[in-house]
Amino acid sequence: MSRPAVRLNETRAGQAVPAELRDSPRFWLEAFGAVRAETERRAAPLSAEDQAVQSMPEASPVKWHRAHVTWFFEQFLLKPFTPDYRAFDERFAFLFNSYYVAIGPRQARPQRGLITRPGVPETAAYRAHVDAAVTTLIETTRNGEQVFPIVEIGLNHEQQHQELMLTDLLHAFAQNATNPIYDANWQWPQGTKSTYPAARPDAVVAGIHMIGRHEPGFSFDNERPAHQALLQPVRVKRSLVTNGEWLEFMADGGYATPGLWLSDGWATVETQGWEAPGYWRLIDGAWFSMTLGGLRPVDPALPVCHVSYYEADAFARWSGKHLPSEAEWEAAARMGALDDAFGSVWQWTRSAYSPYPGYVAESGALGEYNGKFMVNQMVLRGSSLATPAGHSRESYRNFFYPSARWQFSGVRLAEFEH
Amino acid sequence: MSRPAVRLNETRAGQAVPAELRDSPRFWLEAFGAVRAETERRAAPLSAEDQAVQSMPEASPVKWHRAHVTWFFEQFLLKPFTPDYRAFDERFAFLFNSYYVAIGPRQARPQRGLITRPGVPETAAYRAHVDAAVTTLIETTRNGEQVFPIVEIGLNHEQQHQELMLTDLLHAFAQNATNPIYDANWQWPQGTKSTYPAARPDAVVAGIHMIGRHEPGFSFDNERPAHQALLQPVRVKRSLVTNGEWLEFMADGGYATPGLWLSDGWATVETQGWEAPGYWRLIDGAWFSMTLGGLRPVDPALPVCHVSYYEADAFARWSGKHLPSEAEWEAAARMGALDDAFGSVWQWTRSAYSPYPGYVAESGALGEYNGKFMVNQMVLRGSSLATPAGHSRESYRNFFYPSARWQFSGVRLAEFEH
Amino acid sequence: MSRPAVRLNETRAGQAVPAELRDSPRFWLEAFGAVRAETERRAAPLSAEDQAVQSMPEASPVKWHRAHVTWFFEQFLLKPFTPDYRAFDERFAFLFNSYYVAIGPRQARPQRGLITRPGVPETAAYRAHVDAAVTTLIETTRNGEQVFPIVEIGLNHEQQHQELMLTDLLHAFAQNATNPIYDANWQWPQGTKSTYPAARPDAVVAGIHMIGRHEPGFSFDNERPAHQALLQPVRVKRSLVTNGEWLEFMADGGYATPGLWLSDGWATVETQGWEAPGYWRLIDGAWFSMTLGGLRPVDPALPVCHVSYYEADAFARWSGKHLPSEAEWEAAARMGALDDAFGSVWQWTRSAYSPYPGYVAESGALGEYNGKFMVNQMVLRGSSLATPAGHSRESYRNFFYPSARWQFSGVRLAEFEH
Amino acid sequence: MSRPAVRLNETRAGQAVPAELRDSPRFWLEAFGAVRAETERRAAPLSAEDQAVQSMPEASPVKWHRAHVTWFFEQFLLKPFTPDYRAFDERFAFLFNSYYVAIGPRQARPQRGLITRPGVPETAAYRAHVDAAVTTLIETTRNGEQVFPIVEIGLNHEQQHQELMLTDLLHAFAQNATNPIYDANWQWPQGTKSTYPAARPDAVVAGIHMIGRHEPGFSFDNERPAHQALLQPVRVKRSLVTNGEWLEFMADGGYATPGLWLSDGWATVETQGWEAPGYWRLIDGAWFSMTLGGLRPVDPALPVCHVSYYEADAFARWSGKHLPSEAEWEAAARMGALDDAFGSVWQWTRSAYSPYPGYVAESGALGEYNGKFMVNQMVLRGSSLATPAGHSRESYRNFFYPSARWQFSGVRLAEFEH
Repeated sequence: MSRPAVRLNETRAGQAVPAELRDSPRFWLEAFGAVRAETERRAAPLSAEDQAVQSMPEASPVKWHRAHVTWFFEQFLLKPFTPDYRAFDERFAFLFNSYYVAIGPRQARPQRGLITRPGVPETAAYRAHVDAAVTTLIETTRNGEQVFPIVEIGLNHEQQHQELMLTDLLHAFAQNATNPIYDANWQWPQGTKSTYPAARPDAVVAGIHMIGRHEPGFSFDNERPAHQALLQPVRVKRSLVTNGEWLEFMADGGYATPGLWLSDGWATVETQGWEAPGYWRLIDGAWFSMTLGGLRPVDPALPVCHVSYYEADAFARWSGKHLPSEAEWEAAARMGALDDAFGSVWQWTRSAYSPYPGYVAESGALGEYNGKFMVNQMVLRGSSLATPAGHSRESYRNFFYPSARWQFSGVRLAEFEH
Repeated sequence: MSRPAVRLNETRAGQAVPAELRDSPRFWLEAFGAVRAETERRAAPLSAEDQAVQSMPEASPVKWHRAHVTWFFEQFLLKPFTPDYRAFDERFAFLFNSYYVAIGPRQARPQRGLITRPGVPETAAYRAHVDAAVTTLIETTRNGEQVFPIVEIGLNHEQQHQELMLTDLLHAFAQNATNPIYDANWQWPQGTKSTYPAARPDAVVAGIHMIGRHEPGFSFDNERPAHQALLQPVRVKRSLVTNGEWLEFMADGGYATPGLWLSDGWATVETQGWEAPGYWRLIDGAWFSMTLGGLRPVDPALPVCHVSYYEADAFARWSGKHLPSEAEWEAAARMGALDDAFGSVWQWTRSAYSPYPGYVAESGALGEYNGKFMVNQMVLRGSSLATPAGHSRESYRNFFYPSARWQFSGVRLAEFEH
Repeated sequence: MSRPAVRLNETRAGQAVPAELRDSPRFWLEAFGAVRAETERRAAPLSAEDQAVQSMPEASPVKWHRAHVTWFFEQFLLKPFTPDYRAFDERFAFLFNSYYVAIGPRQARPQRGLITRPGVPETAAYRAHVDAAVTTLIETTRNGEQVFPIVEIGLNHEQQHQELMLTDLLHAFAQNATNPIYDANWQWPQGTKSTYPAARPDAVVAGIHMIGRHEPGFSFDNERPAHQALLQPVRVKRSLVTNGEWLEFMADGGYATPGLWLSDGWATVETQGWEAPGYWRLIDGAWFSMTLGGLRPVDPALPVCHVSYYEADAFARWSGKHLPSEAEWEAAARMGALDDAFGSVWQWTRSAYSPYPGYVAESGALGEYNGKFMVNQMVLRGSSLATPAGHSRESYRNFFYPSARWQFSGVRLAEFEH
Repeated sequence: MSRPAVRLNETRAGQAVPAELRDSPRFWLEAFGAVRAETERRAAPLSAEDQAVQSMPEASPVKWHRAHVTWFFEQFLLKPFTPDYRAFDERFAFLFNSYYVAIGPRQARPQRGLITRPGVPETAAYRAHVDAAVTTLIETTRNGEQVFPIVEIGLNHEQQHQELMLTDLLHAFAQNATNPIYDANWQWPQGTKSTYPAARPDAVVAGIHMIGRHEPGFSFDNERPAHQALLQPVRVKRSLVTNGEWLEFMADGGYATPGLWLSDGWATVETQGWEAPGYWRLIDGAWFSMTLGGLRPVDPALPVCHVSYYEADAFARWSGKHLPSEAEWEAAARMGALDDAFGSVWQWTRSAYSPYPGYVAESGALGEYNGKFMVNQMVLRGSSLATPAGHSRESYRNFFYPSARWQFSGVRLAEFEH
């Protein structure tokens, strides 16, 4: 996929939005336009039915994503700052609120697929209505220091949903016996490679490191406060685990050896009947995988993808290694010691998702954005092929339940020094 | 809704297709065209999303119904009788087989809503493809005595799904907070009335009656063999139970009095939180009901609708009466002693769905049509406002689980003579 | 097992309690003593833990049965007729009420196994307390015409629970890896045989028969009113289906052929993984079955036992026959044309459990005894090896859900005459 | 409850078993005798039914605990080190293996309550059989350096189950409408007090601390390796949260304010209908709690008990504070800055249960003891009133799912310094 020109966030190199641009309406207009267009670009190949389906409670319809991110601007930007703003349809606040309890009742999450109305055309009209109002607000506000930060969080929020649009859609397509294709020309990101010359050694991190977001520029509250962490010496692997390595694990009985698994993980293997990564299918003795480009043969040289935390942990145990903690990962990433840290697959860490010391949630309804999910989930670091450009950084914390495998999630190993 | 001109089955008056027409290709062409057009007419007001949604495992998407009835002709008519027939898409046999185990694997029922592809346009093309092939077959066959009966069962089958298209769609719309409208001009069938002058007494049936289909013309295998049944004297009410009477039942604590309910019924009341018929909602102290015409006030003079067997049975107990058996109902209907027997609401009977004495299922895959459902379900008799014209007869046996209430199902009472 | 001397009910020969005895306190004292003693005799081999366990929601602990039947006398006999009666423990009304909603709240059925207190000794004391009070009441009442019928229903009720004590206990023992033995000397009832000389032909029943309890003597309300039924000519098999015949069914793929099964039945086969009758286990290539005498080899000559309605129905279809209706069964039994009608295994009929025409439930709380279960269950006729002596008659209607197979339930076939 | 004389582990003061005793058979004989006797002392007040019941899948029967800890010695001590040892009953390895996959199949956890046999007397005989064999082994072994460490882990294991015997039994009793009493004289541990003079300030911990077990003496593998951790400055409360404070939280709508809760926690509140801590009941306007001494009034001065992690976290948020991490807790405990750290209630920390850096599981089947549970659970620190004497230490890590509240679990708060 091509990427939008405006990069809202710094990338792995770590630059923030230049200070002089942060007060510029023109900058925010361009950013707003670029991000909103990227959402539409991702939805464009899909039929109305494709956009309406919800294939499991954890996934949401593409149409719902398109409307929800729009409602976010309506709720948090236009209602407070555009005095005469008229909601496109008052009922949408019920339909497209995701989980903000403070704002009122909402459509039950497992029933988002029942929203056949509004349809795709009405959803597009809703987006246009809000686009116009936000554009006017950005152009005319005298209150940029309050307005622009909300535009910024709204755009970062929309970028998160851009990734989910693709992961959720792929899950739906993977349930379809006709193996639909999202993009026939889809390719794994150019330059992704999993192995490197022996000359480039793995990094060893140790000692006290600053963890979390301390640079200027946007970050989510869960990345703060930055703080020092003391790391035991650990070797973090430069490269990602590949499909080829995963096939060895499978051939060695990885999915049939309970001793390799966490207890909850093994229960999941048995209940779900897992025998391979998500979306893998054995056809006439060869492994294929469902991708955004349809059903494709599994390439042993590429990073393994669509594995759960349980699988990542079992693979690590089988390897005689373990997963890095999120602090170990971040320290190594900041040293530039990780290949494919970004843009390929999210990398499971062994860290449960919890607040940093001294964490304080945002005030108001936006305080529900992150903090209330800080239990029972595991942190993933880096970013994936579905992450929009400019939405990656070393301090970024993604999180999912340990059984989840419909994200583009893979594995990087680590090893303690003795 | 307007009704198609050709009436495939006799109506309550009981006439069958005239014998001289049964061998006429022209007759079958017209019948085929009329029934297929009625399906399209019912789907026409719906968007692609409306047609794709599945709001519960028991309901199916409208698009699925349209394709499934088409597959039925492909499978049971074209494959055997059109030697060079080429399937529109071989994969559809998997997607659109409902439950014919003998024919092969199929899409799991609760996942019919995941079939975003084929889309609506491709579904229409599928229908056109099959329409053309069936038309050619009817016009050119020299084997009418074998072909036409399968056309006939295919059309009766499609008519059954025409009713389900509306009941299933209404269930989906009833889950939508925006209360969508299928047909703004929808009205309860003209002439439906629930009370009649006292001068028209209720019928008493007693003694030996012939039950089941013994007349010529089409019937399903579950209506046969016709046989004699001995009935104890029973008074079957001429009129249907009304919303007004149901409101009295509710006001008298009907939904809060366990002694009125079957044990399984009371468990359902408690689990589901039932307090009124299906689709009823209390808004500012007044009862409304979701209908094909959108949210409408409950009219006390109309027949109660969307009640389960459990509710019908509890209401009967509260009334000091009971539900008729299906034989009692049929005997009374054949006497012409029932008002609104057809075209308003299906009427629950106290008879469990089971085979008639000497019942033999059809041979081959069509033998799965009825017989394998003959346990755990209750018989409903008559027909409803959603039943297509010409699809009603006194011997017709409909059946649903006793907790079902998304059909247009109502209540007629009976009382034993002492 | 030996049988108590006093036979409360007529047996298959159909004699009722002689009229002159029905007013005799001495008769009722003896009957009460005999039935109460039989309960204790059945519990005697069991430890406290054996008596307290509940192995599934549908089964109840032996200790609970012992206390519940005692509470029944306390509630329906002593409270109304012994003015100064003091309950043994007021809290027992909550613990040991089974389902009489009219009487008040009660222990949730699936949690009867949590009643570790009262213990076995306190339960015995409870029984003794009530025994003494009932004995005094019988000896001293001047109101025998009201009191004795309640004694009678209480004893019939206790006899029903005597059977359940054994079926429920066997289910618990069958979950135990050590295969506990209830009675090492247990034998299949003497005289049970499954095949008979060809000289004794099967009965054909046809025409109008009186069905239900019309003779004097005790019956439950669900056996009434007696009424005439018109039967199509049907041949009811004289003998029961044997284990040997069932093994043929299994060898022919019976449990792997969906076309033989009702749709709900096949779903159960798949969900439960059924491959043989209940309690059967394949050990080193030979079939064994868990019995009251422990794990025993399956004897091909004995009647098949522990099969569900679904299995009985599938076997019948495989045989090219069907199950008799309950009216067909009763007519044949009254003709004396059935071997092993009583005392071996209950026999599934194809009749759903529903009220007889003109059925009226008992008034008061006892009206909950039968009527409220008349949906979703199938009728079994006859009686089993666990049925206490004197508790069998031709009009007796037992009923269970079609998936149940922890009762001593078997199969008799029928065949329509053409 | 009185406590056994021999203290296997150091207590909070931190002394280990003196080195000269670790090689002494006499010491181990005494320790073995004392711990085994404590198990019996705890079971003594219970009937056979009390010991056999399993009131939820997470809890186990007392009889099962008694047998399981015995099997542990049989499996890990006697089989390897007593060459001619004859198992008491080979089938017990199936019944009483808890989760050691490496050792073979086992009774499904939710079905431990079905083990009515062996009974209590046979269980006592099993214990005596193993006691005799272990005693002989300790007295005669020439291999103490291998044998005694396994005795030690077996005794620590049995002590863990001693606590569970009481927590699991209390859960069962709390389901019983008769409110059974385990020990009528039971009292909250003497000296427990929740508030202290203002003169004793809360501790502030900060900087680098050694965490984990580095002292000599027994520890579980999950307490190792000891390692340095860098703590941000945090004030850990000296006292526990009391019932009185919890009542304020309730009065302030704590259980009805979703904004106070983690998302998964709020879902649990709604599903379970939580309105107060576990075992609390409102009777005539006053709160009572089920305890080992039966139903008792809630004492506002005592520490709150039977709260889940979700509740502890919500309370902390309501207080404007948070829970300590396990490292913060341990650092403060090692400073002697915590009142009631041990012997009252376990204290939830905000740390998910995960391996320490460089953690290596024990080899062999004992490696399943801890490591495989390191996901989805939260760490509790300290010990409770049900913890046997000598089984508490600063490095001890207990862990449960965040919804669990049948343990004696309470709350200690912390607050970051700014």
